[in-house]
Amino acid sequence: MKLDMALKEMGRQSESYSGGGDGEIVDFYGFSSSSEEEEELFVPPLNFSMVDVGVFRSGFPDVANFGFLETLKLRSILYLCPEPYPEANMGFLEENGIRLFQFGMEGGKEPFVSIPDDTIREALKVVLDVRNHPLLIHCKRGKHRTGCVVGCLRKLQRWCLSSIFDEYQRFAAAKARVSDQRFMELFDVSSLKHLQSSLIFWKR
Amino acid sequence: MKLDMALKEMGRQSESYSGGGDGEIVDFYGFSSSSEEEEELFVPPLNFSMVDVGVFRSGFPDVANFGFLETLKLRSILYLCPEPYPEANMGFLEENGIRLFQFGMEGGKEPFVSIPDDTIREALKVVLDVRNHPLLIHCKRGKHRTGCVVGCLRKLQRWCLSSIFDEYQRFAAAKARVSDQRFMELFDVSSLKHLQSSLIFWKR
Repeated sequence: MKLDMALKEMGRQSESYSGGGDGEIVDFYGFSSSSEEEEELFVPPLNFSMVDVGVFRSGFPDVANFGFLETLKLRSILYLCPEPYPEANMGFLEENGIRLFQFGMEGGKEPFVSIPDDTIREALKVVLDVRNHPLLIHCKRGKHRTGCVVGCLRKLQRWCLSSIFDEYQRFAAAKARVSDQRFMELFDVSSLKHLQSSLIFWKR
Repeated sequence: MKLDMALKEMGRQSESYSGGGDGEIVDFYGFSSSSEEEEELFVPPLNFSMVDVGVFRSGFPDVANFGFLETLKLRSILYLCPEPYPEANMGFLEENGIRLFQFGMEGGKEPFVSIPDDTIREALKVVLDVRNHPLLIHCKRGKHRTGCVVGCLRKLQRWCLSSIFDEYQRFAAAKARVSDQRFMELFDVSSLKHLQSSLIFWKR
C-alpha cells in the first residue's frame, strides 16, 4: 500500500519533470535536491487513524486530503451523515473507482440524539466485509457517529469496555458523550457473529 | 494476524475444556453458549493504537494486557524509558520470543526536558526496519516519548505538521508539550531517507 504510494508519488513527480524540452535533464525519479525541496506534503483528514488492517477512520475529507487518500488505495468509503455527498468528493470517488456506502445518521446533540441501532448494524456489515477493504469510515468530525461504529467493531473484537471508551474518548475529547458510550455498552453483537467467515482481521 | 488471534483463542478455550473425563462432551472450538458467555475479553494497553501496518503504539503494558498483546504476534518491542524492564514483562517477552530494544529517554516535565535527537534517530531506525515488525513502541503513558518517535516517523512519511500535531495531541491530550512539537518540527529526516529500501509501509 505504502509502496504504491511512493511509486505513484514518484510517477507524479516524473510527470511534472517530463515536460522539459530537448536537452533538459529529466529527473524521472525525483531524486534531485531541488525536487526534494519541492516534494508534496500529505494532509490526512482531521482525526484520521488506522482502525485495523484495511480499515481507516476520519472526519470529513476535503480537497486538501485527496492526495493523501489516494495513497490508501481505498476500495470504499462508509459515510455516516444524512446530507448528500459533496460534488468534489463524488468526483474523487469516481476518479479513483471508490464505492460509496451511505448510512445517514443525525448528528444532533445530547439529550436529543438517538442512535439508530439498525443503521449501525448495517454499517458494521459493510465494515466486516473484506471485499470492501481498504475502507474509510467517516462522518463530519470523526467523533460520535464514527466513534460508535468503531466502538461496536471493537466489541466484536472482544475489547473490554474501558479500552473501547479510552479509544472513543481519544477522538471525541471534550465532546465525548455518555449516550454514545451507553449505546456501545448495550449494543448486542451476537447477531453479527455469523459474519465472521468474511473477515480477515477479526474472527469469533 | 487477527486470524491467528482467533485460532489461538480457540486453542486456549479448547485446552480449558479438554481436561474433561470420559463421557464428557468436549467443545473443542468453544462454540457452546456457555463458553460464549465466559469468553475472555481483551484489554489493550492504555493509549493503544495502530500506527501503520506492522507498527503499534501504547502506554506501558502490564500483566492484564498480555493476552491482547499475544494476538499481535509481536516480533519486537521498542521501549523508550531508562528504567529497567519489569520482570513480568521480561517473562512475557521470553515466552513469546519478542526482542526488546531499549532506548532510554528521561520523561521529565517542561522546561527541564530535553529530547535527545540521536536517541530518537536510533529508535526510528529500529521502527523502519521491517525485520522487526510487528513492533510495539511504548514508553510510560504513550504520550510524549512515543509521540515524538511517531511524529518523526510521520515526517518521514511526509505528513504535514498540522496533521502530525493533530495526532500527537490526540494521545497527549491535556499533557501536550510545545517542546515536543517544536522538536518534531525541527527534526531533520534527510539522514534517514537512505533507509527506505528496508521499508514496506513507507518509501522516499
